[in-house]
Amino acid sequence: MKLPFKSVALIGKYKAPDIAEPLLCLAEFLSAQNLHVVVDSLTATYLGQHPYTVLPLDQVGKVVDVAIVLGGDGTLLNIARSLSSDKVPLIGVNQGRLGFLTDLTLENIQVSLLAMLNGDFIPEHRMLLTTRVMRDDVEVFHSLAFNEVVVHRGNISSVIEFEVRIDGEHLYHQRADGLIVSTPTGSTAYALSAGGAILHPSLDVIQLVPICPHTLSSRSLVVSGHAVLEILMKTPRNVRVRFDSHTHFDLLFNDKIIITRHPQSACILHPQDHSYYHTLREKMLWNQSL
Amino acid sequence: MKLPFKSVALIGKYKAPDIAEPLLCLAEFLSAQNLHVVVDSLTATYLGQHPYTVLPLDQVGKVVDVAIVLGGDGTLLNIARSLSSDKVPLIGVNQGRLGFLTDLTLENIQVSLLAMLNGDFIPEHRMLLTTRVMRDDVEVFHSLAFNEVVVHRGNISSVIEFEVRIDGEHLYHQRADGLIVSTPTGSTAYALSAGGAILHPSLDVIQLVPICPHTLSSRSLVVSGHAVLEILMKTPRNVRVRFDSHTHFDLLFNDKIIITRHPQSACILHPQDHSYYHTLREKMLWNQSL
Amino acid sequence: MKLPFKSVALIGKYKAPDIAEPLLCLAEFLSAQNLHVVVDSLTATYLGQHPYTVLPLDQVGKVVDVAIVLGGDGTLLNIARSLSSDKVPLIGVNQGRLGFLTDLTLENIQVSLLAMLNGDFIPEHRMLLTTRVMRDDVEVFHSLAFNEVVVHRGNISSVIEFEVRIDGEHLYHQRADGLIVSTPTGSTAYALSAGGAILHPSLDVIQLVPICPHTLSSRSLVVSGHAVLEILMKTPRNVRVRFDSHTHFDLLFNDKIIITRHPQSACILHPQDHSYYHTLREKMLWNQSL
Amino acid sequence: MKLPFKSVALIGKYKAPDIAEPLLCLAEFLSAQNLHVVVDSLTATYLGQHPYTVLPLDQVGKVVDVAIVLGGDGTLLNIARSLSSDKVPLIGVNQGRLGFLTDLTLENIQVSLLAMLNGDFIPEHRMLLTTRVMRDDVEVFHSLAFNEVVVHRGNISSVIEFEVRIDGEHLYHQRADGLIVSTPTGSTAYALSAGGAILHPSLDVIQLVPICPHTLSSRSLVVSGHAVLEILMKTPRNVRVRFDSHTHFDLLFNDKIIITRHPQSACILHPQDHSYYHTLREKMLWNQSL
Repeated sequence: MKLPFKSVALIGKYKAPDIAEPLLCLAEFLSAQNLHVVVDSLTATYLGQHPYTVLPLDQVGKVVDVAIVLGGDGTLLNIARSLSSDKVPLIGVNQGRLGFLTDLTLENIQVSLLAMLNGDFIPEHRMLLTTRVMRDDVEVFHSLAFNEVVVHRGNISSVIEFEVRIDGEHLYHQRADGLIVSTPTGSTAYALSAGGAILHPSLDVIQLVPICPHTLSSRSLVVSGHAVLEILMKTPRNVRVRFDSHTHFDLLFNDKIIITRHPQSACILHPQDHSYYHTLREKMLWNQSL
Repeated sequence: MKLPFKSVALIGKYKAPDIAEPLLCLAEFLSAQNLHVVVDSLTATYLGQHPYTVLPLDQVGKVVDVAIVLGGDGTLLNIARSLSSDKVPLIGVNQGRLGFLTDLTLENIQVSLLAMLNGDFIPEHRMLLTTRVMRDDVEVFHSLAFNEVVVHRGNISSVIEFEVRIDGEHLYHQRADGLIVSTPTGSTAYALSAGGAILHPSLDVIQLVPICPHTLSSRSLVVSGHAVLEILMKTPRNVRVRFDSHTHFDLLFNDKIIITRHPQSACILHPQDHSYYHTLREKMLWNQSL
Repeated sequence: MKLPFKSVALIGKYKAPDIAEPLLCLAEFLSAQNLHVVVDSLTATYLGQHPYTVLPLDQVGKVVDVAIVLGGDGTLLNIARSLSSDKVPLIGVNQGRLGFLTDLTLENIQVSLLAMLNGDFIPEHRMLLTTRVMRDDVEVFHSLAFNEVVVHRGNISSVIEFEVRIDGEHLYHQRADGLIVSTPTGSTAYALSAGGAILHPSLDVIQLVPICPHTLSSRSLVVSGHAVLEILMKTPRNVRVRFDSHTHFDLLFNDKIIITRHPQSACILHPQDHSYYHTLREKMLWNQSL
Repeated sequence: MKLPFKSVALIGKYKAPDIAEPLLCLAEFLSAQNLHVVVDSLTATYLGQHPYTVLPLDQVGKVVDVAIVLGGDGTLLNIARSLSSDKVPLIGVNQGRLGFLTDLTLENIQVSLLAMLNGDFIPEHRMLLTTRVMRDDVEVFHSLAFNEVVVHRGNISSVIEFEVRIDGEHLYHQRADGLIVSTPTGSTAYALSAGGAILHPSLDVIQLVPICPHTLSSRSLVVSGHAVLEILMKTPRNVRVRFDSHTHFDLLFNDKIIITRHPQSACILHPQDHSYYHTLREKMLWNQSL
């Protein structure tokens, strides 16, 4: 990380024109702090006239020291995947609804940002998963995931069958609606809906959470972040692998999905008063009762 | 039920030509007991030359006193839905793999059947659900279900939203992968995979089991079999309602699904040594440990 | 039920002297409606001078048409067990915290009560369980329960073992912390904590919910309210059976606990705007999320 | 670890005289390999005449290079706690029932042991938890745990209340039967019964699993092995903290339990064909179905 930050990217939620006004306001504030402001080209389409540098997203990461993302956790996930190879740290700003990754709000942003841009922040490294789909020993698809890789039946009504291996060893055959391979970040997303444990985001672990397994004796499993996971499809068709609800690929019988930790992490910067557990209680009503 | 049984239907699993030999063997045995044997026309296509009456399935129910179904639980479910209006009791025969509904096996069948055809059986009435899909107050689809009615996102990657009402009263809004409305019979099928309680098949109740709800505070709910359940779709498209993994219908925004108990039950005949709990332990490894 | 109500009992939470003022206020209001007011003798000890009839609790039920209970659900449960043989309907009034059974609040009570005492109410019959503990074929203890009967290890650190039978048939052997046998009323109490399904209070069913079973393949089971349940203790000592967290009895090896539905139900009267599901959402944050 | 092993301890299950014969047989075999055999004094009481060195358990660890434990996982846990400060690696031998830690059987032991004593093994380091109970800032109890630390209501019938903090930060208040703080080793023990995820034993993490929490919105949490956990008792009495079902201590209101990872790990040696996942499938019937 290059400190102090001298150039900053501003990236807004996709297809959200109402981001224009707060984003321009923020850009003006940052410029006034003598920061070089860069806007990605998609965001720029909503901004009208403005004096800031515009670059395509895949070049933004090469020129800025830090990126500020306005949107929800979903937007930050998408940007983090895109910028992961450039090691640019990210600051997430939500538009009203608290997120696990976007814990600044537009209201209080200027004071918090000033402190953070001066180096007063908590950096957090969050792992990504990298997945390759092999068909007859040839890679036919690959993708990154921040939250989870999901193997799921598509529109078919019956369960799918697959085998799971870890580091070359047989783990289990399963008949289920699917399987979630989740990072700690993803443990509060789809994996939580399917009954997985909550994993602190700092952990170097991967959780396997079955989706509606057709057995009474299934249970989530947490393994090392260094594990090599393989899923072998035993269902002829209509099975899909999804990445962060973002991209997907349709699978065939005997396709092999290989999932490992990505060598790069995403680096999220939080303000000093950030509390993961506070967000967990506020956002998920964790352990709340009357 | 007309006792003693004088005419009996033989119905085999769909698209399973290997059913021919045991079915002909069984037909011969029944004929030798002076029973009139009827075979449904689909099953008959596998049988070659034979002396038995052949009728389409929708007419079989009108002429026989009892129907013997060879196949698994899935086959029996399909036949039960088709014959439910004719009140014909059913006897299920599995081909090796124990079922909840098909608890006779081909091996021991002759002795057991003799006793049962003479009236020595345990009759069991299993409820069905009837569902109407309303669009702008017009019924656009209807179907029966023996196990469950499932509202489920199709191939879309995000959660669906819907409201559930019971007897006209608001129950909850939910964001989830879907919802299972299950009969007691269905409680050992998909509802079990999604975490529902096991319901004894004799109960007059309906269970609502959420599928991967996006909240920590969801829980299955068991209500009276006389409840009127309504599900209002709040997701624009790509949502599907399925009936017993058998038929389905694609839903639109604001479609209303009305689910009630069907006035007719299916009547399954079991041998005297039938035990539901034995099947539960054997088939689902319920409460088994080393 | 004798309508219109002419005599009414007022019963306050045990060891809660602050119940005195609202209770006297309520008594005055009821007297002004020409109702004969009876106070149970325990409650009376907190009231100072007053003009109302005082009777021991076990005689109250024989002289009044309806009993109003001030306290929480726990208080109402205790009174319901005591009065169950007298078939006196109960009205529950909470002191601020909404209950499933106590859905009137002191604030709005006069208007609601007037309507209810004139017959404008929703009666709800809630089952009780009756339990006998047999030791060498002799009954050594018996008790009623409104919520649940719990077999639980006491202070011992290891699991207990027991066999469960239903209607004379073997259900399972289990090694666990214990077992909850719950009424529908109890399904939102301890059974909910242990993972059981929520059962609508009108149902005539019993739910068996294992507590920390030492197996992956356990699941709650819902059976008919007419079932005869037997639990056979296979652990030498330090096992306890509890009734509604109210009374308990210490068990020995081979003790047999026989649980059936009590012939009498408790009758709770609710105001016309009562909603069980509203209470479920408000009190248990059921299906709530941000 | 001192290789090659020159002296070996033999330690048998406590109060299990039938261990004598196989243990003497094993001692003879080891002596014949020119290993110096030491027997702990408790085990020796069952052996009659024999030529081997006898030492109290707390001195055994100081003189041997490796300890072989005959018994189940429970026995190995007890010995591991006792020997943890001496860094002696352990080999577990079960008497017929496969264990997670005791994966040699008496039948095949000689061949496997020969290989292992020659250095052909998989070493596995398993964390221990160290716990201090503070009362008015004074330590009143401390203990090690290999599986889990459990805070649990004793014989009282109501829930207990406590606050949990992590690294000085408030996590949650909880009303529950108790809380399990589990190592990865413990994730297949009591934590599994209470619904926790399975954690691979190599992980440096701690899992918090609530026991029958009185809320719908609880969920297991996995945190770093370097976390400092504090549990503050908010229930006046009758609460107990237990360590591996081995020792316990009775708590009072405001007692503070501080749990951290112990600086030493236990080192278990496995044969080369050891598979944790195989044991999981065999012993827990994990993901098994018909």
